[in-house]
Amino acid sequence: MAVVPLVNDEEASVEALAVFNEIRQVRGTDYVNNFWRALAHDPVQLKSVWNNIQSVMAPGALDPLVKELIYVAVSTANGCGYCVHSHTASARAKGMTPDMHAELLAVVAMASQTNALATALGVPVDARFDPEQTKG
Amino acid sequence: MAVVPLVNDEEASVEALAVFNEIRQVRGTDYVNNFWRALAHDPVQLKSVWNNIQSVMAPGALDPLVKELIYVAVSTANGCGYCVHSHTASARAKGMTPDMHAELLAVVAMASQTNALATALGVPVDARFDPEQTKG
Amino acid sequence: MAVVPLVNDEEASVEALAVFNEIRQVRGTDYVNNFWRALAHDPVQLKSVWNNIQSVMAPGALDPLVKELIYVAVSTANGCGYCVHSHTASARAKGMTPDMHAELLAVVAMASQTNALATALGVPVDARFDPEQTKG
Amino acid sequence: MAVVPLVNDEEASVEALAVFNEIRQVRGTDYVNNFWRALAHDPVQLKSVWNNIQSVMAPGALDPLVKELIYVAVSTANGCGYCVHSHTASARAKGMTPDMHAELLAVVAMASQTNALATALGVPVDARFDPEQTKG
Amino acid sequence: MAVVPLVNDEEASVEALAVFNEIRQVRGTDYVNNFWRALAHDPVQLKSVWNNIQSVMAPGALDPLVKELIYVAVSTANGCGYCVHSHTASARAKGMTPDMHAELLAVVAMASQTNALATALGVPVDARFDPEQTKG
Amino acid sequence: MAVVPLVNDEEASVEALAVFNEIRQVRGTDYVNNFWRALAHDPVQLKSVWNNIQSVMAPGALDPLVKELIYVAVSTANGCGYCVHSHTASARAKGMTPDMHAELLAVVAMASQTNALATALGVPVDARFDPEQTKG
Repeated sequence: MAVVPLVNDEEASVEALAVFNEIRQVRGTDYVNNFWRALAHDPVQLKSVWNNIQSVMAPGALDPLVKELIYVAVSTANGCGYCVHSHTASARAKGMTPDMHAELLAVVAMASQTNALATALGVPVDARFDPEQTKG
Repeated sequence: MAVVPLVNDEEASVEALAVFNEIRQVRGTDYVNNFWRALAHDPVQLKSVWNNIQSVMAPGALDPLVKELIYVAVSTANGCGYCVHSHTASARAKGMTPDMHAELLAVVAMASQTNALATALGVPVDARFDPEQTKG
Repeated sequence: MAVVPLVNDEEASVEALAVFNEIRQVRGTDYVNNFWRALAHDPVQLKSVWNNIQSVMAPGALDPLVKELIYVAVSTANGCGYCVHSHTASARAKGMTPDMHAELLAVVAMASQTNALATALGVPVDARFDPEQTKG
Repeated sequence: MAVVPLVNDEEASVEALAVFNEIRQVRGTDYVNNFWRALAHDPVQLKSVWNNIQSVMAPGALDPLVKELIYVAVSTANGCGYCVHSHTASARAKGMTPDMHAELLAVVAMASQTNALATALGVPVDARFDPEQTKG
Repeated sequence: MAVVPLVNDEEASVEALAVFNEIRQVRGTDYVNNFWRALAHDPVQLKSVWNNIQSVMAPGALDPLVKELIYVAVSTANGCGYCVHSHTASARAKGMTPDMHAELLAVVAMASQTNALATALGVPVDARFDPEQTKG
Repeated sequence: MAVVPLVNDEEASVEALAVFNEIRQVRGTDYVNNFWRALAHDPVQLKSVWNNIQSVMAPGALDPLVKELIYVAVSTANGCGYCVHSHTASARAKGMTPDMHAELLAVVAMASQTNALATALGVPVDARFDPEQTKG
């Protein structure tokens, strides 16, 4: 159940509909995800998030699939079920194989385990991790 | 400040010292991180975590650097300062450039933002994300 | 699906029913939220939480609407879907407009993003934030 | 200890220094917080975060002090010590009194408590919270 | 909705089915929880998690019921609805009474509240909590 | 570094000092933890938290040591370093042995791992966990 009604095309403002149509064009599908329809009550936020995500997830020093894996990992740790679903789907669309998915889950599980141990033990950061030490 | 005293070589049990020495050999350094020294009060847990991390982080369908990036992302979302430091250091040792680091942070920041929005809006998962639909 | 059966009026203990009736009176409605019906298995906890929430959310140095906005923000960051729903509804009942909701979400999203960046960068607290410096 | 060296004025790129100077001008102080100095390794991210925070935190349907209170609340729930410090300082600079601070903490504590209870009880969202019900 | 199809007995690999059958034998029931069926896409991970959980939750210095209470507490704080359900059920099967459940929830709620307060106040760790002080 | 100055005995209000003295009497020590000194800016909150913690942590269906273990577990999952330190110390004072500590950590680590897996897999709650099924 959404906290706000999902905005359909008829209800969307001109600015929101323009973003919906850009999403359709970029993704090559008529379907617009619920996330964008929920966000459309605030067309400025909708446009800003859509633009940022386009720019952040574009190919760069990291390739788009790696970025999606990172996105799924963060969404899992933050407990966002919606985001886990949508970005696992995006990762598959960008080439994530079942083996890659299994390894992603294994790393996320391992990290969650050692995060808890390091916190429960209050482990102090090693002096050698200080980047100021290597600064000329 | 640690919750337990860090175990030095002299205080370590035979089993714990064996793991310390394996860490030294695998990593090609005499230095053993505080995390392992804090964990050494429970040599069974120490050995199990060290073995698992070796196996989970090994090359596979994902390469070791990608796995480190995922590890840093999870550690950030879980708020584990120690883990962020140690795995950012590991990622650098495995070839993470400043540009890759910057893109990692940008994805983590973007995901954190949309995770919050999806949760605050209670966005329902789209039916098309259901994997049972595509099951023969 | 609840972890415990929701307690209806017939099943409620005398103490729990008294709290249900006080909720009805204060809120001017016959409806008692699922949260209270789930909590009613422990009438002492039910009464204590209801009393505390009445006192904490009352007008004071901050007005009740501002308190509801803060409640929604915390519930979002903690990933509590139920609480996001119920306190967004309360905020609306206390006068939150769609524009205020949109700005609330924008601040929550912004904070989530910079929280992640500050954690991923391990930013040390500036000495000037130390309140002991300004203590006479 | 930071994960990256803090960038001082001499080390900053032209783009980063321009943001530092804009921060100085807007805030009427020569001091630039550690957060911005850590972020300055990626001038594009630095500029984007600074611009967004200016626009999100500006007066609107909610006043800037209320926005800072929300920021502190989210930062607390996300466990970001740096952000709690810096935004509590900002809230004070915008007029937060000790009484307002005390009430902020009381709401954050109350919400954290009921978030945990609602999650531990798996409370299902009441049908009446569905906004689609009230959609014409 | 699961992110991956749940694996039924017919679809399971030989290795996964062997774990399913071990679960049946150990628990004395034909029923295999959805968690294991979702994990079965990666039989190595399935076997490893099942083996670890058997060993970690076994009687030791802490009894199995206490371990389940701790499991429920962590799952609540991490916001994992599935885990709250399954481990509350396990705790009941191991003897958790309604009174014990109520006290568990009260402690979890209390801890969540003071965790938030300590973080919002940035309370520094008392020197006397340092275990190195008492090290001979 | 605290967000507020720690309140010493001379600076404490009459109400706050009364709580400090009650803490001293109950614990049989002159030392008052930093947590209470930070909270003392709001004597009402100080008294309320102190009273609640006395009542919640008292012997009941669960014994006080088990309650401390649960407190440490929640504090770890919530990433509250201060609380991990203070409640690990309390648990030791109430009889937690190194073996019990090691098992506590093992359960917390295991739960953190499976919480992440269940969330990343979006595992749906099994119908048999529904308590309404067993309601007469």
